[in-house]
Amino acid sequence: MTVPTTSFDGYVAVPFRPLIDGIAERGEFGDDDIQIAAYAGTELVLDIAIGPEITRESLLIPYSVSKNTIAMSIGLLLERGQLDLDAPVARYWPEFAAAGKAAITVRQLLSHQAGLPQTAPRLTRDELADTVRGAELLAAQRPIWHPGSAFGYHAVTIGILGSEIVRRITGRTLAEFYEQEIRGPRGLDFYLGLPEELEPRALDLLPMRPVTGSAAPPFPRTPGQLGLYVMAGGAPSADEDERRRQARRDRAIGMPAAGATVSARGIAALFAESTVGLTSAPLLSADTIDQLAQPQVAGIDEVIGIERRYGIVFQKPVPGLVFGGFRAFGHDGMGGALGFHDPETGISFGYTVRRMPPPGGCDARALHIAQAMRSIVRQA
Amino acid sequence: MTVPTTSFDGYVAVPFRPLIDGIAERGEFGDDDIQIAAYAGTELVLDIAIGPEITRESLLIPYSVSKNTIAMSIGLLLERGQLDLDAPVARYWPEFAAAGKAAITVRQLLSHQAGLPQTAPRLTRDELADTVRGAELLAAQRPIWHPGSAFGYHAVTIGILGSEIVRRITGRTLAEFYEQEIRGPRGLDFYLGLPEELEPRALDLLPMRPVTGSAAPPFPRTPGQLGLYVMAGGAPSADEDERRRQARRDRAIGMPAAGATVSARGIAALFAESTVGLTSAPLLSADTIDQLAQPQVAGIDEVIGIERRYGIVFQKPVPGLVFGGFRAFGHDGMGGALGFHDPETGISFGYTVRRMPPPGGCDARALHIAQAMRSIVRQA
Amino acid sequence: MTVPTTSFDGYVAVPFRPLIDGIAERGEFGDDDIQIAAYAGTELVLDIAIGPEITRESLLIPYSVSKNTIAMSIGLLLERGQLDLDAPVARYWPEFAAAGKAAITVRQLLSHQAGLPQTAPRLTRDELADTVRGAELLAAQRPIWHPGSAFGYHAVTIGILGSEIVRRITGRTLAEFYEQEIRGPRGLDFYLGLPEELEPRALDLLPMRPVTGSAAPPFPRTPGQLGLYVMAGGAPSADEDERRRQARRDRAIGMPAAGATVSARGIAALFAESTVGLTSAPLLSADTIDQLAQPQVAGIDEVIGIERRYGIVFQKPVPGLVFGGFRAFGHDGMGGALGFHDPETGISFGYTVRRMPPPGGCDARALHIAQAMRSIVRQA
Repeated sequence: MTVPTTSFDGYVAVPFRPLIDGIAERGEFGDDDIQIAAYAGTELVLDIAIGPEITRESLLIPYSVSKNTIAMSIGLLLERGQLDLDAPVARYWPEFAAAGKAAITVRQLLSHQAGLPQTAPRLTRDELADTVRGAELLAAQRPIWHPGSAFGYHAVTIGILGSEIVRRITGRTLAEFYEQEIRGPRGLDFYLGLPEELEPRALDLLPMRPVTGSAAPPFPRTPGQLGLYVMAGGAPSADEDERRRQARRDRAIGMPAAGATVSARGIAALFAESTVGLTSAPLLSADTIDQLAQPQVAGIDEVIGIERRYGIVFQKPVPGLVFGGFRAFGHDGMGGALGFHDPETGISFGYTVRRMPPPGGCDARALHIAQAMRSIVRQA
Repeated sequence: MTVPTTSFDGYVAVPFRPLIDGIAERGEFGDDDIQIAAYAGTELVLDIAIGPEITRESLLIPYSVSKNTIAMSIGLLLERGQLDLDAPVARYWPEFAAAGKAAITVRQLLSHQAGLPQTAPRLTRDELADTVRGAELLAAQRPIWHPGSAFGYHAVTIGILGSEIVRRITGRTLAEFYEQEIRGPRGLDFYLGLPEELEPRALDLLPMRPVTGSAAPPFPRTPGQLGLYVMAGGAPSADEDERRRQARRDRAIGMPAAGATVSARGIAALFAESTVGLTSAPLLSADTIDQLAQPQVAGIDEVIGIERRYGIVFQKPVPGLVFGGFRAFGHDGMGGALGFHDPETGISFGYTVRRMPPPGGCDARALHIAQAMRSIVRQA
Repeated sequence: MTVPTTSFDGYVAVPFRPLIDGIAERGEFGDDDIQIAAYAGTELVLDIAIGPEITRESLLIPYSVSKNTIAMSIGLLLERGQLDLDAPVARYWPEFAAAGKAAITVRQLLSHQAGLPQTAPRLTRDELADTVRGAELLAAQRPIWHPGSAFGYHAVTIGILGSEIVRRITGRTLAEFYEQEIRGPRGLDFYLGLPEELEPRALDLLPMRPVTGSAAPPFPRTPGQLGLYVMAGGAPSADEDERRRQARRDRAIGMPAAGATVSARGIAALFAESTVGLTSAPLLSADTIDQLAQPQVAGIDEVIGIERRYGIVFQKPVPGLVFGGFRAFGHDGMGGALGFHDPETGISFGYTVRRMPPPGGCDARALHIAQAMRSIVRQA
């Protein structure tokens, strides 16, 4: 039974009330603006907003949580038998075979193994919106490692690559395909390209709090700071007005890798619609979900220099990013947001935060809540 | 020259007397019951029992030291040209091709790469005895990682999988094949299925000593505690009477992955018979041994979360499990036992202990003795 | 503009004067004998000798910096279309297919993946000069790990293996091919086989300073001390006269893996000639350089037990060996020397030192200078 919570704006199911009340009592979110939502199976068991300026209907850019739309779109092509993960990419996209890439499979491409974590030359923030132009550049490049010998986060380019796969098969960009086949029919608050009329619901992110004392750089390990180099294409402007204009443009464009606009409930609902179905039958079969969620690579990520485990686009739990059991899958964002589904508990989870956390991944508080919910369900 | 030792019940060759006398003087085994045996080439250079209740003829369950029987049985099929490590498993076992497993090779299957570290649903302790039923379940499953992308200890299932390979090729279970082709003809005290008349020689294991202070959990790293989850199928009962009944049943069944019944001399003799031959010609050629002992994978084991290096079924030395030089091969058991052969020194080694050590692998004292023997032989 | 430096014997371009003057002021090289040279594009921006007995014309053995000649020779075969990295080695060298090596590719062979880090039996120092005999032994051996499952430094054998590839294709040993196609036409002070008449320019290396206090052994991690075992073939004699005779023989032989004779300017010039061309057009196209510099493997090196990343023969930057950005490539030597090119900055760098550093790789001061030069160029 899900009932209104007196602690915050929103609703919480009975088993999770002590967790939410505890958060309220400890005041651990200060004056941050937060949304948390979760389904247990098809039941919305948590849907709250915390903080002075946010409501459950607010929409934010969750950065790489956007990538969950890539995974689900690819899943739909698998479900329909239109895509073979073990086929060479070049079967669908012949130009991709250039410069030693003829043997790269779709599976490798979509699990950060292709060695194409950036375009050469680098695209500007505006050019990043043109996934077709980005795909042309990437198709001509030689991988920066021998394909299959390593993996590393394709922070921006996995959206370009995934979109081109979808476009070659369906004739539509990933954003169009996702909107028409997934978001629209299910009515999800998880947009790739926010309609103008919904702009009033949008909240701009707030920059990271100034770091006091000495803080380790986020990715100190990689020679040549490859990590930062790759990520820098998406860095927000230092000027506040410009940052707002950027954000509005980003929301309109809806770049699949990092430019969605969502509520926490929208994130959770994407996972619930895909796995168990809310408004109609599940988008994907259990077998397709298993294929997407199967770990494809594990170890040190060559780009960001820390441990990672990736499925097809999805992140899998690793130390430091334990959002669920070993069957769980999802994606966090450097803005602090998080989305995942855990087949073991049946939980579909969404989290947004307006204030960017210190570099390194999602807000640690999101992981704590996810872990607490997992414990509650397993002990029930 | 091997002579009786005055320190313990048994025999020791002259070069190893200072080592054994030192152990006696320091009293480092307290009142634990231990067996240690070793061959140097074909000579039994060490065969002792230490402790109040054990003799050299006692028989214990050595847990995963049992897996050495799987490796040697597979080796015999290689030796006879009946098995090709690079063939797909499905060539011998067509049903195995289901759910994305068509390309998995025998080599991958037998080096913990297949992504099948547990059955779904989980088998009970009794059901684990039925390797054919277990094989049916595993043949239908999707690997929990993309085959070839990772490896992780198939603590129980490698016995089921190895047994099914043997059965498909020979028409006999692994336990039957091993008994008829290896143990029986060689008269080894290393049983898969202990005959009723030998039960009087059996000693039950003793549970781990209570841990005082804070102890790290054995496999803290893996998300969802996959490690513990996988191992739990074989956990002993907390009730002492039930534990004894379980042990008796386990000895009768002789599960290849963890349910053999052995003496230390039996362990050492399995390795000596296989590599140099005691009662007749060596069971396996040097070339077959090289194939089995060749490392197939190295790095962090995805299931138990620590460093491992596996050959074909065999463990290879890694930090924390240095039982020999880089050519050495064998297997330890979580009960504390250890067995290996090191081609560099010619040593075949067996060790049993009645008291289970802290979680993490074999008794550290077994490794110290193995390392000391290696030093002695290399300096000779 | 490159001008004479008042600090040391030699020349330095204006942007690097503060760096070189700082080194002089701090006296950080004590009485060590050092050469440092660098090209920025085609301009020699640094060419100095530091220390009482060395000049810019002195020639030293740089140990594994020699391996850069293997990489460049292989590159020339790629450039000319005479070698396919993805072909099995056995296409060029049929005997190599023995003992489970039929599928090993040239790419794997030349990136330390073949599992042949030593010959069996081990060759003596003199026998190491005969690469054809060494190649016969290696062709018959079973890899010490399953090919493709691991990688580890083939400290000596990569020279034998690379030389045999060159010999099978061109009919000439690598040393002959390199001399006739690369060193001779370009007039490089980087010899595989020092002509007798140049012996007066040769300086013998000085042994490591005695270590005071407790020092970690260089490769403590590998079971069986495989690392040291593999390297020991090239260990210098403890007797000083014998060491000098060895050095003279080594210089005459010019073993490709570790026996070149060079000046720092010669090292830098090899990289500049190969990438941008000094005396004529570049030896290799940008595309060939990209193929050689592409990382083939990354992670823990199974032989030396520390992190490494290898291209085709070349080392790539890793923590502890950060000589440049992620596109940089080169090779250091345990004698302390270093050579590399970084496409990002255009720097071609050479460094020699007469006094062997503590075990583990090149002189740390060489890395500091390389990093400082990189910063200067990137800020320009």
